[in-house]
Amino acid sequence: MRLTEERIQNLLDRWPVARLATLRPDGSPHQVPIVFARSGERLVSPVDGKPKTGGELARVPQIERSPAVSLLLDEYAEDWSRLWWIQIDAVGRIVRGVGPAEEELVQALEAKYPQYGAVPVLREPATLLVFEVRQIRSWCASDTAGAPA
Amino acid sequence: MRLTEERIQNLLDRWPVARLATLRPDGSPHQVPIVFARSGERLVSPVDGKPKTGGELARVPQIERSPAVSLLLDEYAEDWSRLWWIQIDAVGRIVRGVGPAEEELVQALEAKYPQYGAVPVLREPATLLVFEVRQIRSWCASDTAGAPA
Repeated sequence: MRLTEERIQNLLDRWPVARLATLRPDGSPHQVPIVFARSGERLVSPVDGKPKTGGELARVPQIERSPAVSLLLDEYAEDWSRLWWIQIDAVGRIVRGVGPAEEELVQALEAKYPQYGAVPVLREPATLLVFEVRQIRSWCASDTAGAPA
Repeated sequence: MRLTEERIQNLLDRWPVARLATLRPDGSPHQVPIVFARSGERLVSPVDGKPKTGGELARVPQIERSPAVSLLLDEYAEDWSRLWWIQIDAVGRIVRGVGPAEEELVQALEAKYPQYGAVPVLREPATLLVFEVRQIRSWCASDTAGAPA
């Protein structure tokens, strides 16, 4: 069965993590968990101050090269009647150098994650991943799955 | 920083959910959460008896068409020092009609998930997704991330 539209909208607002799939230069899929926030019709994820392994994150040039990405929201629970997922097809865009036009995107992130009181929401060079949603599919194991706590 | 090899092996054995990314016919990425078990050097995920939305799952023909897949294990926590992820590049294969050679794969799934006492581990036609691991990358926010509970 599918999640109701109301439940999907609620989860897009409050669910704290998504998995982002992009394409490597050879066309194979690459995945990483991301934090994200909604701002109007867009989703946004920052290159933030959490510790990183190396230089520029692979996701950044991969989105520039292949903007068609997948975002997955889902919940795992030992009680399998609580399982649900939301598959989002989106077009990604990299925004470098955050100006006034991006202020509401940064504010949406700061409002959602109190952790950004301690961790910088952006590191230099300031970079945002902005996603325009093109299609949403959902599944749930029962009509209680994905309900607000 | 990276997870230790010991911690990666432990998480591959015990972590209950992965996100699988495959490619659609147009080359765009597609993601779904999966249950999985390890059997020797392979990972396995069943087309099981959990309720489905429609006919054959998209992941099955997509793996047959494009065997290079990504599996992501990760944990989200409000305490961002506990974050970690394991990216697995794998080659997927569809096994239809489970015979004696696949018995240990099914046993690994049944041993990991007590839920298969109530939900059939396979639905007809019996289908397993088998993954051969090619490369593993990891990240963690601190040296306590991903530790056994």
